[in-house]
Amino acid sequence: MEPAARPGPDPSPVLVFDTMLAYERTAALKAAIDLNLFRAIGDGPGDVASLAQKCSASKRGLRILCDYLTIMGFLYKVEDGYRHTPTSAAFLDPRSPACIAPISRFLGSPLMTEPFKHLADIVRTGRTSLPGAGSVEPENAAWVDFAHSMAPMMAPMAGPLSGIVLNGLSGPVRVLDIAAGHGLFGIEIAKQHDSAQIVAVDWAPVLEVAKANARTAGVMHRFTTVVGSAFDVDYGGPYDIVLLTNFLHHFDPATCIRLLRKVHAALKPSGRAAALEFVPNEDRISPPMAAGFSLVMLATTEAGDAYTFQELRTMYLEAGFERVNAYPVPNGPHSVVMGDAR
Amino acid sequence: MEPAARPGPDPSPVLVFDTMLAYERTAALKAAIDLNLFRAIGDGPGDVASLAQKCSASKRGLRILCDYLTIMGFLYKVEDGYRHTPTSAAFLDPRSPACIAPISRFLGSPLMTEPFKHLADIVRTGRTSLPGAGSVEPENAAWVDFAHSMAPMMAPMAGPLSGIVLNGLSGPVRVLDIAAGHGLFGIEIAKQHDSAQIVAVDWAPVLEVAKANARTAGVMHRFTTVVGSAFDVDYGGPYDIVLLTNFLHHFDPATCIRLLRKVHAALKPSGRAAALEFVPNEDRISPPMAAGFSLVMLATTEAGDAYTFQELRTMYLEAGFERVNAYPVPNGPHSVVMGDAR
Repeated sequence: MEPAARPGPDPSPVLVFDTMLAYERTAALKAAIDLNLFRAIGDGPGDVASLAQKCSASKRGLRILCDYLTIMGFLYKVEDGYRHTPTSAAFLDPRSPACIAPISRFLGSPLMTEPFKHLADIVRTGRTSLPGAGSVEPENAAWVDFAHSMAPMMAPMAGPLSGIVLNGLSGPVRVLDIAAGHGLFGIEIAKQHDSAQIVAVDWAPVLEVAKANARTAGVMHRFTTVVGSAFDVDYGGPYDIVLLTNFLHHFDPATCIRLLRKVHAALKPSGRAAALEFVPNEDRISPPMAAGFSLVMLATTEAGDAYTFQELRTMYLEAGFERVNAYPVPNGPHSVVMGDAR
Repeated sequence: MEPAARPGPDPSPVLVFDTMLAYERTAALKAAIDLNLFRAIGDGPGDVASLAQKCSASKRGLRILCDYLTIMGFLYKVEDGYRHTPTSAAFLDPRSPACIAPISRFLGSPLMTEPFKHLADIVRTGRTSLPGAGSVEPENAAWVDFAHSMAPMMAPMAGPLSGIVLNGLSGPVRVLDIAAGHGLFGIEIAKQHDSAQIVAVDWAPVLEVAKANARTAGVMHRFTTVVGSAFDVDYGGPYDIVLLTNFLHHFDPATCIRLLRKVHAALKPSGRAAALEFVPNEDRISPPMAAGFSLVMLATTEAGDAYTFQELRTMYLEAGFERVNAYPVPNGPHSVVMGDAR
């Protein structure tokens, strides 16, 4: 007897098989990036012999990898070889300003991949298999790597975030950037607003990455740092804007509320706290990328989650904020959730 | 400057991000199978608390895993919990006769997953990172696991394969099943044809699995075995039919031709050699599952491949066969390529 099922698309063993082998997709894309294949494709010519030579690879290996990438939509196959698709040209060729290939380093790092080897155990216990607080364990060196390698993915969101938090403000603004990482969000505000002063909080080695980025952007004279955990350090202030980017999802709601109260105390009246987050719909299964992010938080933290807007709003209100609203970031899976201090 | 690209769908960073995290999909499905979640879903009720109790799991972990499986299409979310989709009911619930969940054991085994950790190196060298001949190294214990765990996926093909090779034959038939594994293909012929005698060749521990299956099918009195490598043992014969299921793809064309010559010598005049294979189209990028199988052969063998029909036909002709044709197996990615001995 077959078990009863909801109506839906026809049953598909291919979906099962594909999913069981999905790790091959990650491996193929990572191999192509590691071999610098997408630069070789952009340079041309795209025949197997030329590509194999440029990538110091075997012809057999190169041909099979390129066919596989073509099946996945990352290359286009023509009579005499391979060409970029629009996706690989824009996001995988290192000559493209939008290239996000470096994020494979962080997404493929042991911090991310190790827990997924023990996912059944993690579902049993309800917390990461990583020691202590998991990915947010103090001084976790992975965040230096994150600051370096995830910057290309975060950079396109800095403009929209900056526009949202500066909207309607004039005169000098003081900005606290909590868990600043690469620092790009505060730096973008400094670039958009001549009299903005940025204070970035993070662990010392991570702040070195942020300071290097601030120097490159020419805003180092308005960029200072506070070394330590966002939960422990003195924020100074008061501030007009506090940024909490990709941070709240690592913690349970009680911890988020505690942090938001500390943020509230560091804000001027009517100052703004802005969280950049994956915000799934209330059904928790859409949109796919924001909702699917919960699994990363299950695997890598003690009690984090991708929170819905209602959950985040409740946290803000409990911490003393008012007028809490969500602003989707265009062309990406993130939203800005912003509340005003009283 | 952005590199030039072929026209195609709009560029998508989501495809890049999804692929870099595709290993999460494999991990989530494997965790659900390991936790026996799909049986619990079939049993109902599907609320988080009941499922967590049945799977000895935490509510947080269970809820996040079920949401993720819903996003992937393996569950359906309703007001009070989760239900099967047609795919999970048919192929993942152990109470379904078509359940293929056990294949995750072989597809997730170190034999399969280890080489994908070194895929860039494999593309460089053009051969598996596994020692020796890779997956076909003599007495590789993984094939016992394969014989057990892949049987549910192969079983639906046994009927169509049997129909193709028996078509037009009458009277007693002698069948040689090379690299028999679970033995299901020869066993099905014995079931369909009362006077068929089956001789199965494989390594000794693998043949134990085949013999157990032959006993269960009630055909053991017409089922004998030859222990050893298909390249070394004396086949006996002559035979009416030789099966080469999921075997040729492990070897280079010269080795395949050598084996096919040996097969030819063991066949009666007009006897048939039938290979069950992933056969990509001549473009080598379609259909996706057959074409994508080349990557598994790159990763796990010295020189294997998913061969096109023209390549297989050439091998058969070189080995002395004539009338070589391909017969797609319905509802699956495999084809039967059959040639007649002269």
